[in-house]
Amino acid sequence: MLVQKYKDMLSGKSVIRQLSEFATARGQEIGYENVFDYSLGNPSVPVPREFTDRMIHMLATKEPLELHGYSPSLGITSVREAIAENLEKRFGLPYRKEHIFMASGAAGALAHAFRLVTEPGDEILTFAPFFPEYHPYVDLTGAVLKVVPPNLENFQINFEAFEEMLTEKVKAVLINTPNNPSGVVYSTPTLQRLADILREKSKEYGHIIYLISDEPYREIVFEGVDSPCVSYFYDNTIMCYSFSKSLSLPGERIGYVAVNPACEDAETMINMCGQISRGIGHNCPPSIIQLAVAQVLDKTADLSVYETNMNILYKELLDLGFTCVKPGGTFYIFPKALEEDAKVFSQKALKYDLVLVPGDSFGAPGYFRMAYCVDTEKVERSLEAFRKFVKTEYGKESL
Amino acid sequence: MLVQKYKDMLSGKSVIRQLSEFATARGQEIGYENVFDYSLGNPSVPVPREFTDRMIHMLATKEPLELHGYSPSLGITSVREAIAENLEKRFGLPYRKEHIFMASGAAGALAHAFRLVTEPGDEILTFAPFFPEYHPYVDLTGAVLKVVPPNLENFQINFEAFEEMLTEKVKAVLINTPNNPSGVVYSTPTLQRLADILREKSKEYGHIIYLISDEPYREIVFEGVDSPCVSYFYDNTIMCYSFSKSLSLPGERIGYVAVNPACEDAETMINMCGQISRGIGHNCPPSIIQLAVAQVLDKTADLSVYETNMNILYKELLDLGFTCVKPGGTFYIFPKALEEDAKVFSQKALKYDLVLVPGDSFGAPGYFRMAYCVDTEKVERSLEAFRKFVKTEYGKESL
Repeated sequence: MLVQKYKDMLSGKSVIRQLSEFATARGQEIGYENVFDYSLGNPSVPVPREFTDRMIHMLATKEPLELHGYSPSLGITSVREAIAENLEKRFGLPYRKEHIFMASGAAGALAHAFRLVTEPGDEILTFAPFFPEYHPYVDLTGAVLKVVPPNLENFQINFEAFEEMLTEKVKAVLINTPNNPSGVVYSTPTLQRLADILREKSKEYGHIIYLISDEPYREIVFEGVDSPCVSYFYDNTIMCYSFSKSLSLPGERIGYVAVNPACEDAETMINMCGQISRGIGHNCPPSIIQLAVAQVLDKTADLSVYETNMNILYKELLDLGFTCVKPGGTFYIFPKALEEDAKVFSQKALKYDLVLVPGDSFGAPGYFRMAYCVDTEKVERSLEAFRKFVKTEYGKESL
Repeated sequence: MLVQKYKDMLSGKSVIRQLSEFATARGQEIGYENVFDYSLGNPSVPVPREFTDRMIHMLATKEPLELHGYSPSLGITSVREAIAENLEKRFGLPYRKEHIFMASGAAGALAHAFRLVTEPGDEILTFAPFFPEYHPYVDLTGAVLKVVPPNLENFQINFEAFEEMLTEKVKAVLINTPNNPSGVVYSTPTLQRLADILREKSKEYGHIIYLISDEPYREIVFEGVDSPCVSYFYDNTIMCYSFSKSLSLPGERIGYVAVNPACEDAETMINMCGQISRGIGHNCPPSIIQLAVAQVLDKTADLSVYETNMNILYKELLDLGFTCVKPGGTFYIFPKALEEDAKVFSQKALKYDLVLVPGDSFGAPGYFRMAYCVDTEKVERSLEAFRKFVKTEYGKESL
């Protein structure tokens, strides 16, 4: 007998996936360049040349058994050292290799973080709008993900709702800043207040409430935006990082868990990650990719295109009368739809070959997400489709 | 509060790990070339040149966004097609891409297989001697691994004990042929009888008992040894494969699940694997490695050294009076120790710089494992140490 819960999941196809399939099919009809596909958060700029060069150099010169050999279960020691050193240099916290666990992307990192601090039945809180995959990531561990409703004013934290939901059952709070889908970066006052509350409630409940900080968009922050280091505010922070977006290599599955050096039992937690791996078939990210990223820790892909695209879209959206919080980073923007049901709104947009994702699955019905990791030229061409859509369907014209 | 079960695991250091650490430390004293380290199952021959060439070629010529992009959750379509075609050609079963799920090594493949067919509390049976990591792999899912005692005559299956343990609670049987640690390949009569029993009991209990076949050593089979395809005997077989040993790239984490095309619900099972991934942070093996192995499916590293080493060791062990089943494949041999407690035996061997792993954790106390994936020259040099060890400690001389 097959396990029913996984079988049941097959019928629930994700909206993002469906829209992306629409875009592909429509692309075959009219040419993909004519489909304004804002559905998927796939990087659109190439990996830095240095990464490719280092990969080729290692393949051409390194002894294959060493290059492709088993990685220790916590990750290759020299790689962990390089990452710790880089984090210390950037953030001024005394990271050492003992605080670093190499993981196969953010999904791998989060899978370890959740299992470190929750037993089945325990609760994890996150804040809307949020990345919908958090649900299967958490729920399939046996823990329970609860979503704090959004602060619609600025997509910072709705503290009132948060404090109400922060009961004794909560063992961890999961944040994602810069945020998918809103593009918003949590401010210093936000993180300060969050940390204060976590400290107070940890004390009151007699157990640590961990802060799990999912940071795959950390390097994509726009000009003039303050993007504070989360671990700086709260000792018991488990940072989950992925190189997918910063280096544009989402398929290579590489990231890490970094436990704040000030966290109680930090080293034990990293060692525990190695044990958790045994139960989930993890066994480390690929050796050659570990070795390659360790050589380009100060590099990123050319991320400037995302800011260019954001500025174009943000301006046009405002001109068209949308309500929209200005993104501080990422490659997402999350405006309010022009009618109450964003699913209907997104469905209508398809007629204009605009692929927009309704915000319902992100915990913010009535909003929609655009992933603008596409060529700027295409963003510009999409504006005409946008104007036509808004005028025809909602009788609005650009200012 | 950190989760206790993972914390507890930290104190139980594996014997293999301890011995390997001894070997490294001793190597620093007397030179690693003088330590006869038979502890670790790490390939000792390089990846085929073609793999390296293909990797470099792709890095030098392919569009980076395509090369390093997200893989679909079941694996890259062209890679799944290539593997299905290759399996069909080799084994004559009608594999299609719909039967293939790309996984990060055998550990990743098994993690999916176990979750496909067992709920917490269900039992999985395996046969001693067995790979000790099966315990955390299974037990941490909530299912229960039970070990059928060994058939000490030839390390095939102890069917009497098996039939006794095959109760209604058993949802899957896990085999590993060619076998780690015995090196034995299950024969056609063994697999035939196993399949007959599984069919009969599935019928009797009214639920399918799946056969999970862990086959990382499939390509390492010695001359004249019949190595039948497990899936050929039993429709409800879930094959778990890894390229770690055949291509000598254990660090790159690449393998697959192949569900027998004749298995009821085969396609559903593969789709379910994509859902299971979401709960364990899997998200596919690295894209570039998937694309590279698909181009060398008919290649292996030069595996002949393992047979050479086996023949040298097997002859010497018999000459020294050891009882030993001749391996049919892998790079392991599993002789009977010269005293009852193999842990004491292995401890004494260390005085002669011979690193042998006691069989207790493999479910066969009184035996010991040698992983002869080392240079032949070193194997030959180790014979003198072996003779001295056996003569000094047990008063036995080579014939």
